[in-house]
Amino acid sequence: MFRVDLNSDLGESFGRYTLGMDDKVIPLISSANVACGYHASDPVVMAKTITMAKESGIQVGAHPGYPDLMGFGRRNMNVSPSEAKAYVLYQLGALDAFCRANEIKLQHVKPHGAFYNMAAKDYTLAKAICEGIAAFDKDLIVLALSGGELAHAAADMGLRTAQEVFADRAYEEDGTLVDRRKDGAMVTDEDIAIARVVRMVKEGKVTAITGRDIDIRADSICVHGDGAKALAFVEKIRARLTEEGVAICPLKEIV
Amino acid sequence: MFRVDLNSDLGESFGRYTLGMDDKVIPLISSANVACGYHASDPVVMAKTITMAKESGIQVGAHPGYPDLMGFGRRNMNVSPSEAKAYVLYQLGALDAFCRANEIKLQHVKPHGAFYNMAAKDYTLAKAICEGIAAFDKDLIVLALSGGELAHAAADMGLRTAQEVFADRAYEEDGTLVDRRKDGAMVTDEDIAIARVVRMVKEGKVTAITGRDIDIRADSICVHGDGAKALAFVEKIRARLTEEGVAICPLKEIV
Amino acid sequence: MFRVDLNSDLGESFGRYTLGMDDKVIPLISSANVACGYHASDPVVMAKTITMAKESGIQVGAHPGYPDLMGFGRRNMNVSPSEAKAYVLYQLGALDAFCRANEIKLQHVKPHGAFYNMAAKDYTLAKAICEGIAAFDKDLIVLALSGGELAHAAADMGLRTAQEVFADRAYEEDGTLVDRRKDGAMVTDEDIAIARVVRMVKEGKVTAITGRDIDIRADSICVHGDGAKALAFVEKIRARLTEEGVAICPLKEIV
Amino acid sequence: MFRVDLNSDLGESFGRYTLGMDDKVIPLISSANVACGYHASDPVVMAKTITMAKESGIQVGAHPGYPDLMGFGRRNMNVSPSEAKAYVLYQLGALDAFCRANEIKLQHVKPHGAFYNMAAKDYTLAKAICEGIAAFDKDLIVLALSGGELAHAAADMGLRTAQEVFADRAYEEDGTLVDRRKDGAMVTDEDIAIARVVRMVKEGKVTAITGRDIDIRADSICVHGDGAKALAFVEKIRARLTEEGVAICPLKEIV
Repeated sequence: MFRVDLNSDLGESFGRYTLGMDDKVIPLISSANVACGYHASDPVVMAKTITMAKESGIQVGAHPGYPDLMGFGRRNMNVSPSEAKAYVLYQLGALDAFCRANEIKLQHVKPHGAFYNMAAKDYTLAKAICEGIAAFDKDLIVLALSGGELAHAAADMGLRTAQEVFADRAYEEDGTLVDRRKDGAMVTDEDIAIARVVRMVKEGKVTAITGRDIDIRADSICVHGDGAKALAFVEKIRARLTEEGVAICPLKEIV
Repeated sequence: MFRVDLNSDLGESFGRYTLGMDDKVIPLISSANVACGYHASDPVVMAKTITMAKESGIQVGAHPGYPDLMGFGRRNMNVSPSEAKAYVLYQLGALDAFCRANEIKLQHVKPHGAFYNMAAKDYTLAKAICEGIAAFDKDLIVLALSGGELAHAAADMGLRTAQEVFADRAYEEDGTLVDRRKDGAMVTDEDIAIARVVRMVKEGKVTAITGRDIDIRADSICVHGDGAKALAFVEKIRARLTEEGVAICPLKEIV
Repeated sequence: MFRVDLNSDLGESFGRYTLGMDDKVIPLISSANVACGYHASDPVVMAKTITMAKESGIQVGAHPGYPDLMGFGRRNMNVSPSEAKAYVLYQLGALDAFCRANEIKLQHVKPHGAFYNMAAKDYTLAKAICEGIAAFDKDLIVLALSGGELAHAAADMGLRTAQEVFADRAYEEDGTLVDRRKDGAMVTDEDIAIARVVRMVKEGKVTAITGRDIDIRADSICVHGDGAKALAFVEKIRARLTEEGVAICPLKEIV
Repeated sequence: MFRVDLNSDLGESFGRYTLGMDDKVIPLISSANVACGYHASDPVVMAKTITMAKESGIQVGAHPGYPDLMGFGRRNMNVSPSEAKAYVLYQLGALDAFCRANEIKLQHVKPHGAFYNMAAKDYTLAKAICEGIAAFDKDLIVLALSGGELAHAAADMGLRTAQEVFADRAYEEDGTLVDRRKDGAMVTDEDIAIARVVRMVKEGKVTAITGRDIDIRADSICVHGDGAKALAFVEKIRARLTEEGVAICPLKEIV
């Protein structure tokens, strides 16, 4: 039987600021990436988010980011490997404290935003991130862009690795995402997007922007919960995957 | 045989900024309070500090503070109990990640600066801090002002509690520290200060600012490593304690 | 003819986080208190807010707060007078840069949240804030709690002072606000609240929580724009003030 | 007669952390670049620094940096042009408030660290920085790497531009600095470094790392005050320039 994970970012509020519709997206996903206080979130938000996650039974992962709250961790920052490793350790530990207090176990780690994107292309950075993860807990699953450098580094270090695909993004022939600034980078037609997801999960194939089919591994699909439209799309993906005989289950049951 | 712990703050540098003489004070103390990135320190500093502590064999505790880097955690902040608990959990977890990476175990927790001072006087805040500690690890020792509310709250919750005294501070009759703004608040004569420490450790007594003797429990003495003069004073205390037959050993061997 | 100013906080978004309905509240008020990057806002938000304010023709003031983004500047912080003065200067200058870039002039200064509340009760803090304001620009209007210490300090220093009242808050006999934790602290009936406002503006009187009438000066009414209900209430106040022959105009036309 | 400015960074302390020997370097330089609270400094430090600068009669400029205190503004950050412009405005305004309070005038602006280095190579970023400067005050002098994109953008916008050279760095044939990671990037022999400076000032020439002479404009020499050795080197440069008949004077008397 086919299986896939649906993951979404969670717990991105900060102080007086609310972001996302966490209670609405939780029932629709199988794994949550929880912000750790660097690019978003604070200790009070983390306490609430982990308590909510525990009650719902969803699997929880850490979502470490750059120390750039003002830029929401979306701006490339030229941090050194030792900084990257230390930032991962710090954020994993901080989030894990709330898991310990709630007696749940961290399932995975997925870097956030620019940290994720840079690690997908830079093996040195990816390796530093994996060293931080391995130093903390060798059983954590690394959730990484399918076919990217972070997936390679994690596999090279013997870490459990889950490969992630995007429903709404076009792919180059080498498996990388088409740059958002290029024409055709986004898959805007929802039905086409969903058909592509189904094919990635069941056949391990996707049509690149050049028209050629390429191999792709899809352990998890990245979805969003930051608006009514995004939530409706997740429901549509879920329904279609179920029709297609694909079971939605957390990463730890897949890799 | 008499025993006492010597504790000092450690790892208070931040980014480009260096503070303290960590390598010099480590050989002189038995327990170190390591900053966790809120009032001081950052992940790179924490990585270095915990590695250095491991190499030296010193016992390590967490030193959580208010989220006030600009004020070095020394300014009273009116945080709620749920904020205080979450700040403790966050910082304990963050620091513990570096301990895990170095395969050492956290020994104790001592709140920093205004967090420490407010908790010594406010049972509600003290209880919230202890809830954070207990939720993280029930075996951690709470290092608190001798006779203060944090010591009471920790004892009430069944946590291991170590009571701290100050060599250079005068005491009121009720065992609280004399306000720094009052005349006579500081014990400036080193010989008198050391004689007071010896008596607190061996007799459990100290002469309050009123002239009356009071009972005081001294599990640990707070010392400083932020300058040549401070270091010389720690050496003097060590020498005198040894002469007096007092063994210097970490908290976990005392409480 | 009677005149009063309606003021509201503006520009409180931060990075990826949106707060408030700035475009909706601007047409309803005469003066805006613009966040300066300490308790809320960032330079990009400030640039947008001042541009929007200029286009609308509304009068703009600085809304400096404590350096506590995580607590939205709502937590008491024990800063020294020299820190308070420097924080005011820093934030005034930062906001004023965007006013210069847009060729508009700052009208007033209103401290935010805990900074405002503490200054209303602590003359030393209030004086430090006023020293910061005076050092920057002696023509700025200080917007302060009616009858509070900030109003006194500003008047003592010869600064232009505007006194602010609250529609939804009860008053003690000495003119201070009833503590929010006390019964009856909030005026929840909108019609009563509006009737009180009208009387404060036209008669300079309000009935204290004890039942006794007291004198109160009402140069400006504090309103909120952070939700549909709040906006509807502002419209109701405006309509009623107009019916009562009270003109709504910016502070600089009042004091 | 030949003239040149000596500039150094100033006011880089933060809260409890002290950096630099400001009182020692001030008598040796003619222009100071003062940190503005983003990569270093805070309002209390800025107040002290500007007061000290006023007393010494030294000329003061703003030294805006990336919002990266943890990295001291030395890490490349991928900020957008509108962010860069807003960051410049914010920091210029904040620093200028302390100048107003001390009745002195800002002379120049020099971006800090990675902001400076990226602007020297990226015309779009350089233009955004210049737009921020021009929006604040068209009379400010832009202090930029000699021959770099920031100097070009400033000149293109009609801003007064001062070109800066480095005593201890080698140059490529195109006038850019040799990458620090390359052999020969640093000029370590002090006498050679000083001879190069004298020639840059008097002849407008420097020998590139390839051995070929290139043209270079030297309005200002960047020096450092962060240690005894650095200070001794500045004294040596001053002495030699004086012997060579080069007057040391602030930027505003040069461009």
